[in-house]
Amino acid sequence: MPELRKDPVIGRWVIIATERAKRPHDFVTMKESIEQGVCPFCEGNEANTPKEIGAIRNGGTAPNGPGWTVRVVPNLTPILRIEGDLGRRGVGMYDVMNGVGAHEVIIETPRHIANIADLAEDQIENSIRAQVERLLDLEKDYRFKYLLLFKNYGFQAGGGGIRHARSQLIATSVTPKRVKEELLGAKQYYEFKERCLYCDMIRQELQNRERIVAENEEFIAWAPYASRFPFELCILPKEHSCDFYLMRPEQVTRLAQILKKVYSDIKEALQDPPYNSVVHTAPLRCTRLNRKAGYWRTIEQDYHWHIELMPRLTRVAGFEWGSGFYINPVTPEQAAQVLRKTGNTSNIYGTTAS
Amino acid sequence: MPELRKDPVIGRWVIIATERAKRPHDFVTMKESIEQGVCPFCEGNEANTPKEIGAIRNGGTAPNGPGWTVRVVPNLTPILRIEGDLGRRGVGMYDVMNGVGAHEVIIETPRHIANIADLAEDQIENSIRAQVERLLDLEKDYRFKYLLLFKNYGFQAGGGGIRHARSQLIATSVTPKRVKEELLGAKQYYEFKERCLYCDMIRQELQNRERIVAENEEFIAWAPYASRFPFELCILPKEHSCDFYLMRPEQVTRLAQILKKVYSDIKEALQDPPYNSVVHTAPLRCTRLNRKAGYWRTIEQDYHWHIELMPRLTRVAGFEWGSGFYINPVTPEQAAQVLRKTGNTSNIYGTTAS
Repeated sequence: MPELRKDPVIGRWVIIATERAKRPHDFVTMKESIEQGVCPFCEGNEANTPKEIGAIRNGGTAPNGPGWTVRVVPNLTPILRIEGDLGRRGVGMYDVMNGVGAHEVIIETPRHIANIADLAEDQIENSIRAQVERLLDLEKDYRFKYLLLFKNYGFQAGGGGIRHARSQLIATSVTPKRVKEELLGAKQYYEFKERCLYCDMIRQELQNRERIVAENEEFIAWAPYASRFPFELCILPKEHSCDFYLMRPEQVTRLAQILKKVYSDIKEALQDPPYNSVVHTAPLRCTRLNRKAGYWRTIEQDYHWHIELMPRLTRVAGFEWGSGFYINPVTPEQAAQVLRKTGNTSNIYGTTAS
Repeated sequence: MPELRKDPVIGRWVIIATERAKRPHDFVTMKESIEQGVCPFCEGNEANTPKEIGAIRNGGTAPNGPGWTVRVVPNLTPILRIEGDLGRRGVGMYDVMNGVGAHEVIIETPRHIANIADLAEDQIENSIRAQVERLLDLEKDYRFKYLLLFKNYGFQAGGGGIRHARSQLIATSVTPKRVKEELLGAKQYYEFKERCLYCDMIRQELQNRERIVAENEEFIAWAPYASRFPFELCILPKEHSCDFYLMRPEQVTRLAQILKKVYSDIKEALQDPPYNSVVHTAPLRCTRLNRKAGYWRTIEQDYHWHIELMPRLTRVAGFEWGSGFYINPVTPEQAAQVLRKTGNTSNIYGTTAS
């Protein structure tokens, strides 16, 4: 059983995934594993994955066979286990709990396409709809506090050897430290200003425009003012909302549109680099008084969901891990300018009638 | 002039080092640059570095020539500039200040040796003495709040193409976020328990022993309970102290001894991996009432300096950057066991008469 261990100094929970443990020398090489054999994520190879949890399927097709556009399966080597209780306990002065959670893979295309940039907009939209559906389901599990939706593309970004577009979803019993920090910072700003910090940033970036990379009716993408990494991007809904998975249908469509654009920009301008992206949504606050009342959530006025997209261009995270001190050799203004110069402007607000 | 920009959500300062900026495609390749030409850090090549700030020299030798054992020079491409004031100001809702600071290189051997593991103990001791001297000098500059001393070894750890052992020292006008978090966590613990958190951990680890890698009269090295990375190590003085650079001479000797051991262990057990190490010391608190009174510092009961050593074995920092959520496939207990099994036990407490 994997464990969640808490750092006694700064309070960060770390997954110690003992069952994935390898021998020491297995960690030494950083070489890319060669992709070989059948891709378990391609249509027709459904038998190579665990049984599907959900799918967007053509009418009349059966689960675990062909005929789908998006398919959700458990991770073959999950870092958390779905069974059991949290088992919070102390080990001397330290704190630990069982590594309970879900670890799912959202396969974003039946075809063997690696980069989301190369999917059609409606296919990206299908993937977002499948993600939203999974989050709405998992939020009902009282053991979970956070749903972490992310994407690792390319070997240097932890994408492994299978070059097939997918997102991963981890449900955890703790809120990730970074999200906690954002919640706190946004709360302090809200208490001081009585306005959402992210909404204020949207207003300022729209006025200034030098860091904006893309925009449509519902979303905006910019290079953050204090970017840690070259070409780091933030994608936010213009409308205030703290929950990614409570988007309106029109927002889902527009999110697919802006994602298609920014992933294409990154691919084109930076020669198809590896990247990580992470959805930052509010922690779960789902409650149910009784079966009849259904589920309800409190509204968070002071948090605003968004997506962080980080191309992996610099060699390091060198001493940044040890210090939390980042050095970025490209200004976000330069990055935005480079990305705006790509040809991927189709269907974006301002360039089409809308 | 480089800028320090503050993240408006979580308050992290980032160095935007615009003068180091390259064109976008320069960031695409991650290939190792081939080492060529003369090494600027070797004895005899002193003319290839900026003029030395300090050195441990043989009697009768002149600055910027041969005859040294440790040599300190400004970084040829510093990420911060030594001249000027902080210029704190707002840019709309954002916060920025001038990138004022120092960026020095401590060359740890006159010979062309890459890994500190391959230096003699007395040579490591010389290097620590030179580091301490630089910190004592820089703490008097009222503009600086923090002195960040670190080591990048190997290309994957940001060590660049020059394979010559060195540490880097960055003096900044802000305290790194990670250190701030540690200060806060340690303070909260101290307020609750009226004991130093790190001293408590030392007592527990000495009792339990399963995560201890090395120990001598003055220092202890262990794999932290909630390690983020495989084979991550923490090296601490047994005696409570918040300032690395106020070590007693005996401590400097013993620190050199334990560093020689753990760097050798890492090199041997993990096939000479890249690594980063960072000294975590308290922020500067140096005050001077008047010239006669000299400098004095408050004593921090609740912080305890230490060194973090992180071999770069896993491919990622994948989504960890976006989430602050780490997955470690090796338990610290396993890591400590592997490292204890290396042959590098000479001169360590318990194996020699002491």
